[in-house]
Amino acid sequence: MKIPEIIRVRSAHRPGSLARVLDVIAAAGLVVEGLHAVTRDHLWTTWEITLETDESERVDRVLAQLAELPNAAVLGRSDRVFVEHRGGKIEIRSRQPIKTVERLRDVYTPGVARVCLAIQADPERARELTWISRAVAVVTNGTAILGLGHIGPLAGLPVMEGKAALMAELAGLSGVPILIDETDPQKVIDVVTAIAPSFGAIHLEDIRAPECFEIERALVERLPIPVMHDDQHGTAVVVLAALLGAAQRSGVDLQGSVVGQIGLGAAGLGICDLLVKYGVRRVLGADRNPSALERVEALGGEAADLARVMAECDVVVATTGVKGLIKPEMVREGQIILALSNPEPEIEPDVAIQAGARYATDGKVVNNLLGYPGIFRGALEAGATRITDAMLIAAAKAIHELATGDALVPSPLELVVHERVAAAVSAAAAQAP
Amino acid sequence: MKIPEIIRVRSAHRPGSLARVLDVIAAAGLVVEGLHAVTRDHLWTTWEITLETDESERVDRVLAQLAELPNAAVLGRSDRVFVEHRGGKIEIRSRQPIKTVERLRDVYTPGVARVCLAIQADPERARELTWISRAVAVVTNGTAILGLGHIGPLAGLPVMEGKAALMAELAGLSGVPILIDETDPQKVIDVVTAIAPSFGAIHLEDIRAPECFEIERALVERLPIPVMHDDQHGTAVVVLAALLGAAQRSGVDLQGSVVGQIGLGAAGLGICDLLVKYGVRRVLGADRNPSALERVEALGGEAADLARVMAECDVVVATTGVKGLIKPEMVREGQIILALSNPEPEIEPDVAIQAGARYATDGKVVNNLLGYPGIFRGALEAGATRITDAMLIAAAKAIHELATGDALVPSPLELVVHERVAAAVSAAAAQAP
Repeated sequence: MKIPEIIRVRSAHRPGSLARVLDVIAAAGLVVEGLHAVTRDHLWTTWEITLETDESERVDRVLAQLAELPNAAVLGRSDRVFVEHRGGKIEIRSRQPIKTVERLRDVYTPGVARVCLAIQADPERARELTWISRAVAVVTNGTAILGLGHIGPLAGLPVMEGKAALMAELAGLSGVPILIDETDPQKVIDVVTAIAPSFGAIHLEDIRAPECFEIERALVERLPIPVMHDDQHGTAVVVLAALLGAAQRSGVDLQGSVVGQIGLGAAGLGICDLLVKYGVRRVLGADRNPSALERVEALGGEAADLARVMAECDVVVATTGVKGLIKPEMVREGQIILALSNPEPEIEPDVAIQAGARYATDGKVVNNLLGYPGIFRGALEAGATRITDAMLIAAAKAIHELATGDALVPSPLELVVHERVAAAVSAAAAQAP
Repeated sequence: MKIPEIIRVRSAHRPGSLARVLDVIAAAGLVVEGLHAVTRDHLWTTWEITLETDESERVDRVLAQLAELPNAAVLGRSDRVFVEHRGGKIEIRSRQPIKTVERLRDVYTPGVARVCLAIQADPERARELTWISRAVAVVTNGTAILGLGHIGPLAGLPVMEGKAALMAELAGLSGVPILIDETDPQKVIDVVTAIAPSFGAIHLEDIRAPECFEIERALVERLPIPVMHDDQHGTAVVVLAALLGAAQRSGVDLQGSVVGQIGLGAAGLGICDLLVKYGVRRVLGADRNPSALERVEALGGEAADLARVMAECDVVVATTGVKGLIKPEMVREGQIILALSNPEPEIEPDVAIQAGARYATDGKVVNNLLGYPGIFRGALEAGATRITDAMLIAAAKAIHELATGDALVPSPLELVVHERVAAAVSAAAAQAP
């Protein structure tokens, strides 16, 4: 996995001095991800330059070369990301100040006793009188953190805090990171079940396949609150939204198309499931793992292989994590190709178009962040006990409808997205049989 | 347990109209806990009057009688406490706004990956780079909520939220309510152990005796982070602080005194433990439960009965929950008596003084809120793996030193209390062998 490194470089106020810095970076084969001025005085500008790299030594070589430039100076690597993480990214606050004895006696003893007794008499009132109407456990066992793999739950905590921070910022939810140091699915199920009364919903995150399927299924059955494994269903919602956009732009009928999937991990199987439920009549799935092929058939898809998917399908969705897996010569004239692996796709979109694809994109736009905040918010607002396919499809349509211009989907930082998703999910929950 | 009820009454702007309202309340045998004007126009003032009662019917009768008064009108019961609980008392927030793509890429993917890898390489860095340096699980199984008993964890959630809200307000900590619907101590131990990596410390709350002892002991042994059952040790800290104050005012040497305890539940045994550790040479304990007497002996106390405690002890601490258990004729000349049961003590302080006590007080001033926010803050700041007796004694001394005037202890709403407690606890942790 490529990880950004941020370097700090000073350049003189002379035409070309920044250009020479970028030349050195380019010559080292590194792409500039971001660049901004940090300080500026009468002689120098200090820049933070973000580079995407999987090779820390290459950045060292770049820094050594930059130090040789006449009109520049190297200030070193930036710890901006670390500074932003110091002390963590989330915190719990009291929703009201507690400065007086009267307030204290209302929110704590003795006043709180009346609220306790009201909930004891009618447990449904907990949704009105406690934070569980907004509290979502963000649960991981650390077995599939980002693209980093099984690095353990503690090392995954910054991801869970990121999810929680974004739930708060985008949808006003309270996400609570819960780290479970267990790989046995049954133990994860038992622990989440035991603490479930603390929360209004359960967001499963970065749990590896196939354990994630068993864990999610058992918790959905056992618990009377919404449970969703985001890597499966959140991804599927955003992919469906993107496919609705791509089909519309290409003048293709998605339900009547033959859709092929390459890669049947958590994301691939979640996508297959939702596409079948949405009404796509034929979904072919390819994976090197035979048990994944059994799973795709159980979901209503057809087991296939890479060659057959590329040869037969109108739409191809790839989630393999394998850079360059789709060769240009495999592309069929007129195909829609979503090569979603990050940071490097199975085929670059421009290469796919040159090879004859009608429409092609990669994983940068298919961001789960478009889905989960509004999905959980809507489910909680509706008092839903489960997240149904109808709710997921409603979320995908709401996201799709907000895409403008050439974009397949809107930006996840637009708050209206999460409001609309929540409203659509809540309405779909209300219509459930 | 007495629970406050708030009534809303309007009185005319005439001398005596409020007095007549209070006469009716007094005639019904109810004490006014609080009274304030909510609105005021040219003819009427609307009052919220808080009454302490364990009999809702009695309030109904008062309201009926008030309705008969010429210059007053009854507006009904107030739902102020319920309004303040609506939507819950706590929430999770992002510590920084996330409005730009650059910020998003720092706190979420791809930037977060660098932080994950740094923690994987050195798990100690989680204390610097995640919220666990401030996150405290507030764990209950709902078996001993306030004075309400075993009402279950969900009905206890408002208490846990209150604890968490006060941790945030008073000490900047993030308390996370964790409800475990299990009465088997071993299951509670296993569940807390499984989720412990999520937190920097564990605050056990409102778990009944004797299970609380087994649960706390096992978690202290198993976990590498501070674990404290507040009902035992938080109470003990505040009682020791109050006893230091009472001894000082009475010119008594606490360590050389014979201290007697009546009632050996979670609080009583926690107090005994801390007094012995503080250096009180003789602690007598009385309880109807033989296993509680065995426990007090294991802690270094002596088993006794009520009569012997009252006859032999210089200092008496009662935590029985039994109103009026100590009769005036039992009081020995010159005794210090802390009758701590709430809302009604084992003996009223003025009755005890009349009967010959040198100093007497009740449970209203001994508020756990003086202890736990600063104790956890100090333990976390020090990176302590346990909460030791030295840390608890340091907390008690810090509280004692802030008492002014006639008060045995300071107000828990003074922020300086929690700063000083945290500093004292942190310093004691640093000195631990």
